[in-house]
Amino acid sequence: MTELEFIRETLDELAIFARMKHAMRESIEIAEKTGVTDLVTDVDLEIQRRIARRVAERYPDDRFVAEEAGLSHLPDDQNARAWVVDPIDGTQNFVRGMFPAYGISIALAQGGVPVAAGVAVPGAGQLYLAERGAGATRNGERIRVSTVAEVSRARAEVDFSSPRDRAVTVDTFTPLMKAVGQVRCHCAAVIGLCSVATGDMDAYVHIGLNPWDFAAAMLIVEEAGGKVTRLDGRPIRLFDGSRGVLGSNAHLHNALVELVPRPA
Amino acid sequence: MTELEFIRETLDELAIFARMKHAMRESIEIAEKTGVTDLVTDVDLEIQRRIARRVAERYPDDRFVAEEAGLSHLPDDQNARAWVVDPIDGTQNFVRGMFPAYGISIALAQGGVPVAAGVAVPGAGQLYLAERGAGATRNGERIRVSTVAEVSRARAEVDFSSPRDRAVTVDTFTPLMKAVGQVRCHCAAVIGLCSVATGDMDAYVHIGLNPWDFAAAMLIVEEAGGKVTRLDGRPIRLFDGSRGVLGSNAHLHNALVELVPRPA
Repeated sequence: MTELEFIRETLDELAIFARMKHAMRESIEIAEKTGVTDLVTDVDLEIQRRIARRVAERYPDDRFVAEEAGLSHLPDDQNARAWVVDPIDGTQNFVRGMFPAYGISIALAQGGVPVAAGVAVPGAGQLYLAERGAGATRNGERIRVSTVAEVSRARAEVDFSSPRDRAVTVDTFTPLMKAVGQVRCHCAAVIGLCSVATGDMDAYVHIGLNPWDFAAAMLIVEEAGGKVTRLDGRPIRLFDGSRGVLGSNAHLHNALVELVPRPA
Repeated sequence: MTELEFIRETLDELAIFARMKHAMRESIEIAEKTGVTDLVTDVDLEIQRRIARRVAERYPDDRFVAEEAGLSHLPDDQNARAWVVDPIDGTQNFVRGMFPAYGISIALAQGGVPVAAGVAVPGAGQLYLAERGAGATRNGERIRVSTVAEVSRARAEVDFSSPRDRAVTVDTFTPLMKAVGQVRCHCAAVIGLCSVATGDMDAYVHIGLNPWDFAAAMLIVEEAGGKVTRLDGRPIRLFDGSRGVLGSNAHLHNALVELVPRPA
């Protein structure tokens, strides 16, 4: 079994579990983490436990980096082989919302970049997979980014982040929001980036993601022909401590970088 | 058959039609209206034709006001009995997007306010109905707005509108975006407002809607216990020529009005 097959098998199982829990979401337990809008549920924790157990059994020597329960620190060795996991990206949307805009994200990183990755979007019945150099798929079919090349026609997902980073987020992305054709916000990195990978969106921006939020979706965008960098266009090393992320269909990338003001 | 039953029967039929067309959306014809992001498809036009025909047969003396095909003018008499229709609100999302965030909207207005209304969200399998004074339902079950009363905890849908109004939209809603707990944007008034009605969202704002965009969803919010006014808190008369809309769970309404700067 390859790492990608391991990811697929794990996500197939957990997508069913998440879907079931979402259907009965009125009854799940919700706790606040850093603030009133930063949530964790027992579903997040259970999914993370299950992924951690599977990784520990099969790849006992690899690092494990994940959002919840004390695992959210960067690995000691930036170049180590590391599993980078977000059990539920979009917990707010899992708990509330007309559309189930949340996903489960698993990436294997080597040398600071994702090399194999999967994102399940259980509420849309979608499984995204990618392997470095081998392309990206949704439910087994190859996906490609859009061909939109004019900013004024671009459909861009702006992620408004948590209240703590909100003011900087709004100010930073004001020029971009005024320039693009359409703005959308599901506020879940895996939804925004996987939408770029399929051509449903043309770009995605966030002021400050953690590696587990986007490691898997980053590879999916890249393998679908898109580009994912820091906001100033620099390449991403997952554990370098930088936090801004710009994903696009590649055609728009330079123009969007120009629309993000540099910090003074 | 009451007007509400007429609305339900009409939406039941057209939701199936829209869903089928959405499933084969790769092949539908798309035309640009006022700009590159203002779209109309043959599906919009066909749905509007079918609603217009049904209304003309059953209520031949009523006015008919709708988004497409030369019907988008306000009635000569503000107080006339008028059917106010958007065949597809969220045409952009109908054409592109991971989640099918579009709806079909039908309202009957009397004296400048909606008195019976329905919104179908075919992609979510949802039908919203409301009658003035009789409450609001989703798929037959009563719905209620949320009880969130603090702006810092509010989940607000900001509609970024078309590029023509974008700069004013971003500037107008910057204080609100910085103050609320969460920002989302599906950019379809029926999705934003029906989400307020069910408590999936706490508020919805748009700088400049037309009556057909929100006439039905407005009544659904009000009958679910929420409030819908102009951005400065004034009551809405559908054909008064004003365009800003603020919908909320009522608890947050005054605080949100304070966050919208008055035009100079």
